[in-house]
Formats: sequence, C-alpha cells, structure tokens
Amino acid sequence: MSLVVVGSVAYDGLKTPAGERARALGGAATYIALSARYFTPASIVAIVGEDFDQQDVDFLASRQIGLEGLERVPGKTFFWAGVYSDDMNDRTTLATELNVFAGFDPKLPESYRSAPYLMLGNIQPGLQRSVLGQMARPRLAGGDTMNFWINDFRGELLETIKDWDFLLINDSEAKLLSGETNLKRAASAIRAMGPKIIVIKRGEYGAVLFHEGGHFSLPGYILETLKDPTGAGDCFAGGFIGYLASRGVSPLDGTATQEDLARAVVYGSVMGSFCCEEFSVDRFRTLTREEIDTRFDEFRRFTAF
Amino acid sequence: MSLVVVGSVAYDGLKTPAGERARALGGAATYIALSARYFTPASIVAIVGEDFDQQDVDFLASRQIGLEGLERVPGKTFFWAGVYSDDMNDRTTLATELNVFAGFDPKLPESYRSAPYLMLGNIQPGLQRSVLGQMARPRLAGGDTMNFWINDFRGELLETIKDWDFLLINDSEAKLLSGETNLKRAASAIRAMGPKIIVIKRGEYGAVLFHEGGHFSLPGYILETLKDPTGAGDCFAGGFIGYLASRGVSPLDGTATQEDLARAVVYGSVMGSFCCEEFSVDRFRTLTREEIDTRFDEFRRFTAF
Repeated sequence: MSLVVVGSVAYDGLKTPAGERARALGGAATYIALSARYFTPASIVAIVGEDFDQQDVDFLASRQIGLEGLERVPGKTFFWAGVYSDDMNDRTTLATELNVFAGFDPKLPESYRSAPYLMLGNIQPGLQRSVLGQMARPRLAGGDTMNFWINDFRGELLETIKDWDFLLINDSEAKLLSGETNLKRAASAIRAMGPKIIVIKRGEYGAVLFHEGGHFSLPGYILETLKDPTGAGDCFAGGFIGYLASRGVSPLDGTATQEDLARAVVYGSVMGSFCCEEFSVDRFRTLTREEIDTRFDEFRRFTAF
Repeated sequence: MSLVVVGSVAYDGLKTPAGERARALGGAATYIALSARYFTPASIVAIVGEDFDQQDVDFLASRQIGLEGLERVPGKTFFWAGVYSDDMNDRTTLATELNVFAGFDPKLPESYRSAPYLMLGNIQPGLQRSVLGQMARPRLAGGDTMNFWINDFRGELLETIKDWDFLLINDSEAKLLSGETNLKRAASAIRAMGPKIIVIKRGEYGAVLFHEGGHFSLPGYILETLKDPTGAGDCFAGGFIGYLASRGVSPLDGTATQEDLARAVVYGSVMGSFCCEEFSVDRFRTLTREEIDTRFDEFRRFTAF
C-alpha cells in the first residue's frame, strides 16, 4: 500500500443543530482513511472491541481500506459523545470512554512497514512515536495533535514531532504549542521543533500552510448545509496526504513543488467540507471522485483574481 | 472629484499590546479617505471642533483630500478611546464622547453632488440617507454599519440600505442583520434588502464578497507586526471603492467584471493590512503606491494553486 493511517476507530454520540446520532461510526483513523482512499491506497492501524459492527468493517472493506492492522480485542470500542454549539464552531464533550483504546499498543503488520506515506492521527504522542519507529523511514511522515497532549504531555510530544515532516494543527493549538500569538511566528517556532511543513487549520476560515519557501493561504469553503463537523480535520488530513501520495512526491527530496503542497491543502479543504455535509462518515457512502474534482475547480473560481 | 467619503473625523485614545496613544488622529472618514486617496481623488464630509489640530488638517490637505465639506464648529472633536485584547481580535470601548458629532447634519458642498462614487462610513443611518439624497445618483454608492444601528435603529437602517449598491459589514453583524447563522444565507438575505454587493469582513481571516454572479473569498494577510487594528475596516473600504473608482467602473451598469470586484477586495485587504502596522493613521504618512502594489502581488503568490 501507499499510505498507513494510525488513530482511533470509534463510535460517536453526536448532537448538532441539524440532528443527533446515538452511536455512529467515527474516529480519526476512520475519517482519514476514508478521505485519503479517494486518492491513494490506504491501510489502517487501530483497535476496536467485540461490539464493533460487522457492517462497519464491511463498509471500510468495501472502500478497499487495508484492515490487516485493525486489531479486534475483548471489550468495547472507544466511544466519544459531544454536543455542538448553534454555529457549530464549538463543541462540548459529554463522554470519552476509552474502553479498548486504553490498551492500544499499535503493532504494524509486516506489510505496512515499508509504506512511503504515514499519517499519525491524534493519539498519545508516545504511540505515534512507536509507530514511526516500526517503519522503514517513510518518504513523508507527519500527524496531528491536540491541546491535551500539548498541555499534559509536552515533553513526549516534542520528542515525537521532532521526527515528523509535517504537522497539522489548529489555530489555537499552534499558539499553545509555540507560545506565540502571531501566526507567522508560531509557525516559525514550530518548524524549529522539527516538522518543516506546518498546516494550520482554521475551521470555517480555511487553512494556512507554512514551509521553507513561504506560505500558502486558502479561505474556507462556505457550506450552505452543515450537518456535523465531526471528523472534518481528519478528512482534511486524509485529502492532504492522500493527494501528495497520489502524486508520489515528497517535499523532503524536492519532488513536491510549492504547487503540489498548495493543491494538497485545497484537496484537504475539499474533503473537510464534504465531511460536514452529513452526519458521521455518511457523506463518504455516496461521494464520488468527480464531485471532489468539481469542488476543487469551484475553489479555483471563488479564489481567483 | 471622483469619490465622496462621509463619516467621522475624530481623535482616538488607543491602547494595544504594542503601546498606547492618548490622542491620535482617527475616525472612519479619515481612514477611508487616506486609503482611497492612493487610488482616486477623494473628498470628505465630516465635522470637527475647535480643538482639531492644524497639523492634522495639513496632513489631510497634503494628501490632496478635498476638505471643503469638513465643517469646523465650536466645541470639541469626537473622541473615542478603547483597549485591545492580547491578540487584538477584541476591543473594549473606554470612552465615546460624541461632542460636536452629536450635532452633525451633513451638508454637501455643491461641488460634491455629482461625484460618481460615494462611501458612507459608519454613522447614524438617517445621516447616511440624507447624504445620498443630496447627490445626483452616484454610479456606485454604499457604506458600512455596525451592531448598534442594527439593534437600535433597524427600521431606519433598512430604509437606508435599500438604496445602496454595496454594503460592507463584518461577520457577526451580517448574522445579526439577516438573522441567519450561515454566511451564504446571510448574504442572500441582505442582498434581498437592497444592496446587490455584500462584502463580509472577517478580520484577520479575510473577506468574502457576494454578488449576483457568485462569491469571491480571500484569506487575510498574515502580519508579522501588528500594532493597532483601529481603522482597518475603514481602510479596507477605502481600498475597495477607491480601486473601483480608479477603474471608472460600476457593477450596476455591467462595466465592472467579477475580476474588478475581486481585485477591489484584494486592494481593500492590502490597505487594511497596512493600516494595522502602525498606530493611528501613521502608516499612511510613509506608505507608497509601490508598496501597495508589491503587497497585492504578494497576495497573488500566497493564494495561487
């Protein structure tokens, strides 16, 4: 395969102004892989419990997502529940039940170890480091993190991201990690920690990529129908690395141009925007590559001057 | 002249994380005219008190801003004071002393009445309507407003903007005015109130223009040095209408293309970004047209894909 994705496979309890779901397929690895799969072969490393529905396995398998690394153990699958604010820009966590995820110790199947692209979803930094350590050095490896790890696992996080090529992080977390309120200075500070490519996600406002040659900034896609923003950041990640993997390029050996990186951000944004249109992973049950490319062209039209 | 600008000419007491000024030149009309003047001849309609410094008159005159409509009356000039939050995204008003502005009843000099472009800065909607009523219909007329008028003068505001061609408004105010939380639906609702062009300003995140043919979205310029955001929205307005005036076009008679409108948004953003680099209007004491065009090109580079 081309891309290894590590992270949670979970069930989510979702409540948004558009409705609710008591138990819907979710998890960072799920969203990342479903999104990336439109661009490149992808395989998951994750853990689920005995309660994980066969129909969800079937759905992932129907997308030809590699499941050799999906461990199934006694116990219950990771469960998260949250409720979104009226404008869906904020959410309150109602429940986080780690369940089998508490004992997650990712073991990469042999067939995964030489994959050229690696996306580490938002999990404990030590686990992210362990996964990268099990691989022959990928051509491009990076991941996501969150305020919890930045605040309470700072040392371990710094030890982990120093080996990454890229970091996806949101606005406020970039400021938290760097101690800088200015976005440019925050990005410089984080680049000095290791990852040479920083993508700062700004929710509905878009994303900014910083790299050696400067930066690329993209406004958000303005959705008319927004049902559930859960997983949008992960779908961004999937589109971003999926596109780079599909091009077979890496910024590290000079084979990815600034244009490749910029387009990866656009594809990331396209995938994040589709994710929000339905609850859970439902948009990916019907989404076609043609719709993706149509929206990419739409981005071109509404940003050209 | 080509552009008439109506609004406040004021003194501001400013406190930001970068420093403070006890009494610095400010006011919507001041910022709009200074910004627009890089693109087109512009004249002010405003009122000041006896305390208005000759050096400030001289500064505006040195920029060839038309001051025939700058009324000087007994009393003190409008004074506003505020303090900005650490990230400068929020501010708290410490003082609003209307002074002579309380009696402002704009009377357009004869020479202003046939100007083809009109920008109504954020003042009481009734006064904005009175100014438009004193003019032969400009080729392009529009303005700015704020939450105070939307909440407490809604009827008068609606009566006023129904005759406007464009409205500049910020994110939260667009939602307040329209009652819609979704940006696209908010813009549609406002377009149904009269102005066919809506520019929604999103501060550091950029701006979105909605018009008949769709929308144009631009991310914000990422400043490394941000000293004082006061007036940035007005400078955006000045660049926006100043550029359209310089092209001699109007979207209303079909002479302004989507590209003209998009570039007007970029020039607006360029001017807003420069405004923040120094306190008060100080950046405009040294800013050159060459620097403006260089930053315009920079926008092109960091948004291209």
